[in-house]
Amino acid sequence: MTKQEAIHFLQEHLKSMKYLESAMGVLSWDMEVMAPVKGIEYRSEVLGYLSVEHHKLATDTRIGCALNALENESDLMQVEQKLVDFFKDSFEKNTKIPESLQRDLTVATSKGGQYWKQAKEKQDYSIFKPYLQKVIDLVIKQAECVGYEGHIYNACLDDFEKGMTVEELDRIFPPLRDGLVKLLNQIKESRVCIKLHPSGEFDKARQEKLTNQVLDMMGYDYHEAGRIDETEHPFTTSLGIGDTRITTHYYEDNLESGLFSSIHEGGHAIYDQNMPHELSDYGLDEAPSMGIHESQSRFYENIIGRSLPFWKGYYKKLQELFPEYGWTTLEEFYGMINAVKPSLIRTEADEVTYSLHVIIRYEIEKLMMSGEVTVDELPALWNQKYEEYLGITPTNDSEGVMQDVHWSEALIGYFPSYALGNLYGAQFYHQMKKEIPNVEEQLEAGDLSQVFMWLKEKIHSQGNLYSPSELVEKVTGEKLNPMYFLDYLNEKYSKIYKL
Amino acid sequence: MTKQEAIHFLQEHLKSMKYLESAMGVLSWDMEVMAPVKGIEYRSEVLGYLSVEHHKLATDTRIGCALNALENESDLMQVEQKLVDFFKDSFEKNTKIPESLQRDLTVATSKGGQYWKQAKEKQDYSIFKPYLQKVIDLVIKQAECVGYEGHIYNACLDDFEKGMTVEELDRIFPPLRDGLVKLLNQIKESRVCIKLHPSGEFDKARQEKLTNQVLDMMGYDYHEAGRIDETEHPFTTSLGIGDTRITTHYYEDNLESGLFSSIHEGGHAIYDQNMPHELSDYGLDEAPSMGIHESQSRFYENIIGRSLPFWKGYYKKLQELFPEYGWTTLEEFYGMINAVKPSLIRTEADEVTYSLHVIIRYEIEKLMMSGEVTVDELPALWNQKYEEYLGITPTNDSEGVMQDVHWSEALIGYFPSYALGNLYGAQFYHQMKKEIPNVEEQLEAGDLSQVFMWLKEKIHSQGNLYSPSELVEKVTGEKLNPMYFLDYLNEKYSKIYKL
Repeated sequence: MTKQEAIHFLQEHLKSMKYLESAMGVLSWDMEVMAPVKGIEYRSEVLGYLSVEHHKLATDTRIGCALNALENESDLMQVEQKLVDFFKDSFEKNTKIPESLQRDLTVATSKGGQYWKQAKEKQDYSIFKPYLQKVIDLVIKQAECVGYEGHIYNACLDDFEKGMTVEELDRIFPPLRDGLVKLLNQIKESRVCIKLHPSGEFDKARQEKLTNQVLDMMGYDYHEAGRIDETEHPFTTSLGIGDTRITTHYYEDNLESGLFSSIHEGGHAIYDQNMPHELSDYGLDEAPSMGIHESQSRFYENIIGRSLPFWKGYYKKLQELFPEYGWTTLEEFYGMINAVKPSLIRTEADEVTYSLHVIIRYEIEKLMMSGEVTVDELPALWNQKYEEYLGITPTNDSEGVMQDVHWSEALIGYFPSYALGNLYGAQFYHQMKKEIPNVEEQLEAGDLSQVFMWLKEKIHSQGNLYSPSELVEKVTGEKLNPMYFLDYLNEKYSKIYKL
Repeated sequence: MTKQEAIHFLQEHLKSMKYLESAMGVLSWDMEVMAPVKGIEYRSEVLGYLSVEHHKLATDTRIGCALNALENESDLMQVEQKLVDFFKDSFEKNTKIPESLQRDLTVATSKGGQYWKQAKEKQDYSIFKPYLQKVIDLVIKQAECVGYEGHIYNACLDDFEKGMTVEELDRIFPPLRDGLVKLLNQIKESRVCIKLHPSGEFDKARQEKLTNQVLDMMGYDYHEAGRIDETEHPFTTSLGIGDTRITTHYYEDNLESGLFSSIHEGGHAIYDQNMPHELSDYGLDEAPSMGIHESQSRFYENIIGRSLPFWKGYYKKLQELFPEYGWTTLEEFYGMINAVKPSLIRTEADEVTYSLHVIIRYEIEKLMMSGEVTVDELPALWNQKYEEYLGITPTNDSEGVMQDVHWSEALIGYFPSYALGNLYGAQFYHQMKKEIPNVEEQLEAGDLSQVFMWLKEKIHSQGNLYSPSELVEKVTGEKLNPMYFLDYLNEKYSKIYKL
């Protein structure tokens, strides 16, 4: 095989894999959003079939031949090298994992999910425990097969945040955690009392109008290159070039939930819409990592969407849409949407406490993977950390160790991305303010176009040309630094809580 | 390979093919109904990829091995034999068509469609002619490769109406044609003047309500096993077990179009929902042919939906839904929805003239395939037949020979199914009335449940266990007989037009 033939083979092979991913994406989206309930069982079979076909492609021995043919090639273009790196990494990983282990993992996560749900409903950890043990054992086995340097947890991190390591997170997370705990304690001692929302009814049709208005402002093209639909758990999915969809939810007694979900998903969607599709032949029209992707959604949701300048510009329009609602002053409203209150539920956490939830999981996952904590000890460890960092204790294991679905699905190593998203976002914002000094004025004027263009140029259009850490350095001129996020929070919440 | 292994292989292989068909179905449905316009191009690529994969499965040499292993098996169960017959037929066909011919056909139909559209818009047949010539040549070549007995057109018919032949259609269509022409001429001479619809506005939301009401009556489960969506051209699609969807359209100035489209598609959908899914392992949970499928939609649309008993029961409810509309008497309304008026457009034809449109195409297709008419002679032949049977002449070739998209897509042999659907439907109804003597009273009472149950038991639940002709004989005790349809029309229209 010549160099050209090998590159061509990899490109075509990648294309086939992407086609199958797109098909699975459409089938899954349809299943979540559209499909009649009696069609779900058969649909699951179809998805199972396609994923087996995808796995066959991913482990096709011809990939190995092409990689061999390219092994000693030194004059590859950057994009070609990236293509080779992708296949090398995924092919080697896939072929290192024995089929029996793959099968065991599928069984374990399927059972794990079932029993997690049952145990959570019954508030009985003992039901879930043996299945969790199985999942952990298999993830450890998988890490051993795939191999790693340093801490065994690095093998898990690499799946979601390429190149991220325990060593790096142990540099970043402890100061972040300590800073957050400190800020949280100051807020707890603050005498500022944030008013609760007055109760109210928010007509669904008008909430939809609101969502459309805000997403138009943000620049998400749901007219010709996307859609907005409804699901209980909002998500974003890209089903191929020119088709990036979001879902949101509308609660008639709660405006915030749908509004901020829509903004969050819009942030993800804009990223995908701005991908450099000219790089699609090399598979580079995607984000470098989960964390970088999450940085964009958290950026729009919190840094923009929960900022005072944005609401200075937008509050009137919101009031016009729901004139019968008992609106308060802008400042009071701004306080309400940023109120800090430690709770047991990560997905509903405020900006200050959110990352603490993630760090707790990170600290526990590390110990799980290194065997330093047993499944028997998990509930107590969980509760102890919640008490230590957030000052609250779960009253049962459903609120505690069984809160998230991730572990039952063998998604160990995923959580850090959530917190990293906050850090990347704040560091990007710090840089953006230097380059667009009047960005706050623009927000007040309801103009998000320069924010959009900056993110597009600096981050979105880079696709997957750089690793997360390379991208952060390229955009901001320095390594990931948790202090930007802490500074951002300290500044914002000092004002809100008059610290 | 043992017998058991061979059967098992074919079953599993069929399952894989069905999974891919389901995936393509979802992707196509989504493209028609949901997808943003900028996503269409990539989606087409994904569909192209999946259809190539499907073709690979359909021509997998292992099918040949399994069929060889089963060649001398005499003790197969009926369902096993059907499975073998299916693969034998499709595998032999597929392997007999050289890849180059397959490729030429794909190119020709793709170009044909493009130039048909352009030529139709410009009313210039000369643009389309060379591409039509190419398509006809290739379809003839295909028929020669696949082989046939008797008339070469039999090879085309077999693709859509298994076992149907020119010899059989030449027994059925001429008396049908003559009977229809005679009835049409009587109607033309009738002094009865059917009033035109008064103009009116029909709110879309209320039309949706109407559709739901009628489809509920019919027994189509769009709540848990289907959906109703909107497209310009209504269609029905089954995306797997438990998921049969229809689309319809709503015109605010025209109630009938949406209403009867919905009923028509509902007829298709009920058929698919009533399929015997216990036969799915043998691929027998589908209709024996296009014509039989069409018989169910035409049955509901016309025989039920345009009948006097149905409207005796339903007219009041319709009036209640649109109270501001200037409703006429029931009898006048019944006349309006059944008015006979020869026109050039098949898809909008009334019950009397519809089959004449189809027979014209059948007569021409036969001559095209046997080489008895050239593409140069087609327009004149077309116009001559319209004049002869319907008494009207197209003013240009867009209204004439270029009316339908089918030929540009190499769908030669498809048209007869449309007319056969009418014949099957009337013959079924004749039998149904014998077995449910008070069926008209039930319709008047708004009760369609026994109609539903009869069709389910006699036709739907039979799946593809019998060929179309076997099924007709099994259900009605005799061969397909066009007189039932003619009798039905003569009786119905004699009353309407006082003949």
